[in-house]
Amino acid sequence: MNEALALIARGTEEILKRDELERRLETGRPLRIKAGFDPTAPDLHLGHTVLLNKMRQFQDLGHQVIFLIGDFTGMIGDPTGKNVTRKPLTREDVLANAETYAEQVYKVLDRSKTELRFNSEWFGAMSAADIIRLAGQHTVARMLERDDFAKRYAAQQSIAIHEFLYPLVQGYDSVALKCDVELGGTDQKFNLLMGRGLQENAGQAPQIVITMPLLEGLDGVNKMSKSLGNYIGINEPAKDIFGKTMSISDDLMWRWFELLSFSKSLTDIGDMKLAVSKQLANPRDYKLELAYELTARFHSASVADEILAGWHAMRSGAVPTDIAIHTIHATAEGIRLPAVLREIALAASGAEATRKIKERAVKVDEVVIDDPGFLVFPGGNHLLQLGKRGYARVYVEALPPS
Amino acid sequence: MNEALALIARGTEEILKRDELERRLETGRPLRIKAGFDPTAPDLHLGHTVLLNKMRQFQDLGHQVIFLIGDFTGMIGDPTGKNVTRKPLTREDVLANAETYAEQVYKVLDRSKTELRFNSEWFGAMSAADIIRLAGQHTVARMLERDDFAKRYAAQQSIAIHEFLYPLVQGYDSVALKCDVELGGTDQKFNLLMGRGLQENAGQAPQIVITMPLLEGLDGVNKMSKSLGNYIGINEPAKDIFGKTMSISDDLMWRWFELLSFSKSLTDIGDMKLAVSKQLANPRDYKLELAYELTARFHSASVADEILAGWHAMRSGAVPTDIAIHTIHATAEGIRLPAVLREIALAASGAEATRKIKERAVKVDEVVIDDPGFLVFPGGNHLLQLGKRGYARVYVEALPPS
Repeated sequence: MNEALALIARGTEEILKRDELERRLETGRPLRIKAGFDPTAPDLHLGHTVLLNKMRQFQDLGHQVIFLIGDFTGMIGDPTGKNVTRKPLTREDVLANAETYAEQVYKVLDRSKTELRFNSEWFGAMSAADIIRLAGQHTVARMLERDDFAKRYAAQQSIAIHEFLYPLVQGYDSVALKCDVELGGTDQKFNLLMGRGLQENAGQAPQIVITMPLLEGLDGVNKMSKSLGNYIGINEPAKDIFGKTMSISDDLMWRWFELLSFSKSLTDIGDMKLAVSKQLANPRDYKLELAYELTARFHSASVADEILAGWHAMRSGAVPTDIAIHTIHATAEGIRLPAVLREIALAASGAEATRKIKERAVKVDEVVIDDPGFLVFPGGNHLLQLGKRGYARVYVEALPPS
Repeated sequence: MNEALALIARGTEEILKRDELERRLETGRPLRIKAGFDPTAPDLHLGHTVLLNKMRQFQDLGHQVIFLIGDFTGMIGDPTGKNVTRKPLTREDVLANAETYAEQVYKVLDRSKTELRFNSEWFGAMSAADIIRLAGQHTVARMLERDDFAKRYAAQQSIAIHEFLYPLVQGYDSVALKCDVELGGTDQKFNLLMGRGLQENAGQAPQIVITMPLLEGLDGVNKMSKSLGNYIGINEPAKDIFGKTMSISDDLMWRWFELLSFSKSLTDIGDMKLAVSKQLANPRDYKLELAYELTARFHSASVADEILAGWHAMRSGAVPTDIAIHTIHATAEGIRLPAVLREIALAASGAEATRKIKERAVKVDEVVIDDPGFLVFPGGNHLLQLGKRGYARVYVEALPPS
């Protein structure tokens, strides 16, 4: 029981309310755990898996996990017509996107223990009058307390009235699904709490809300996001997942262990930190374990074995001891690998560097990188290699954003 | 054309926009004129007929009048559950209430030229998604600009979110009905304007909005309302309609002529005022005309003839010339007739006065009053009569509300 609670609490930002969770866990019945996802075509990265991992932990503890796709609002699109990128999705779009999700999330979740649901199931059957009754269950003032609404209202940016209905729609999903627990990012807290009030009004015990932090990306500063380029996509090639993980700072590594590792317990991580601080262990060896675990999760143990073996083989090859050391500067957005190679004169030009990368002649931290768009972020140091002889170590210092 | 416009403009508070109305009248086609009504059991008074009269004028000009009953929201009731008096109406309630309306409004409107509609016709067929799309057509900030919302928000009184949907529902009615003109009270202006935006979004020419003032009640100060007791119900007995009309002040009479009379044009009214100011006419004679017109409208010409004849017969009877004059005080809420009779000692006690009233032995301004709840308001003077001999004239002065 205490172990279960400790596992559930690991890495969470907040549990509302913890005593309610304890009492419900004590009943011994499988709890219904919901997490909601957009119905858009997803391209998941490690940041998204923080939530998936928590869902997986609930599954491992014997609870019922519901992967809810919020297709009802997605099929409405943007009713203001302002956001042309939010075109209404068709039923076919939704199902295709769900398939894309499934391919990705079942790398983390146990498919046989996951209930996949679409909220159009209940909202599609709802009438205009039903929505008005739902809207009567909340006040304008409390809705305007939501952080982003409050800011937009204060800044006189327009909020369309249907935006006030969407948190209620999300909250009602918990009523329809009779959820015990809802999981979400910290940025979702307001919406997650919505379900509690609606469940109480419907005569249900209010769900426990668990928020997960946003994972810092490769740069160790900003949250992982595709637009910032500081991400590891879960569909990326195995060697990229491995190599990019090897490129993170030691500090970030501990955070990633906490939020992304299943193989290391919090006690393990504490022990590892201690060993490093006493210089009894090399943090790079732990980073290898993390890179191995993530590569195995999103590909397979055999692929991860192979990459790890290759890495060790490379290591045992002759890396010169007297490598030139450079310091370069990068903003938080990162700097592209060809620019780094040119700046430290390992390549004569950006074009040459790009060509060499495409020829698979460039390694970063002893992993071949063949993507010229690869970004190097401030805050770490990296061993760069071009061909057989070109070695350099670069320290990347932070520049303020341009 | 100019005459039509003048008739339409008579008594209105505002026409938005007048040039659009002119252009649409010029087309010569019958315009679609909408006025919306609550689906609650109505008990209409003269105040309500200000709007009905305007509708009737449109009918007389050949336009199509739509009497819209907003039953969709009435059947929802109060979704917050706070207002227990707003229970959801059933379909049967709605139809029964509509019947009650019909009995009353066709005393003013031409039944054969009135389209009776219920907005459940289109909203009953609407889905949850349709309402969300509708909600997307308006912003929170603009909704909070509505006077009563602004005040309640500032006073931290709660506004349930469905209340933001109701003006949109009312506005959408104009889209569904393809209205050219919507009529309403001045207090409805915000909601009436809502239809314009929604019609534009739907590719329709926006409706012209015409607001009518709120009619002052018998007291000449407050708007006519059942709760204030300063009203004439259109279902009241003929002698009460006649008698209460005779009790209003001369100033109020001009206002009532403008808003309630079909027989007097604005030019007529101007002439009458002039005649009174030059002491060429007795305002009481004009008041008799107004009382006659209203009595005939809500009962019949023959009943009105009879009452008028009775009034004249009474007048020709011996009203003493040396009547005692009293000054009494009343708050804006009025003072009940038995209390007046006791105060001026025409009756020995309130109980005696009540008994005499029930015995039909009491007249006010030469009309028998048999309702002990009859209220006398400040601002006028009245001839009171009890039995054959008891005469008094009372001047009623205003007290501040208690």
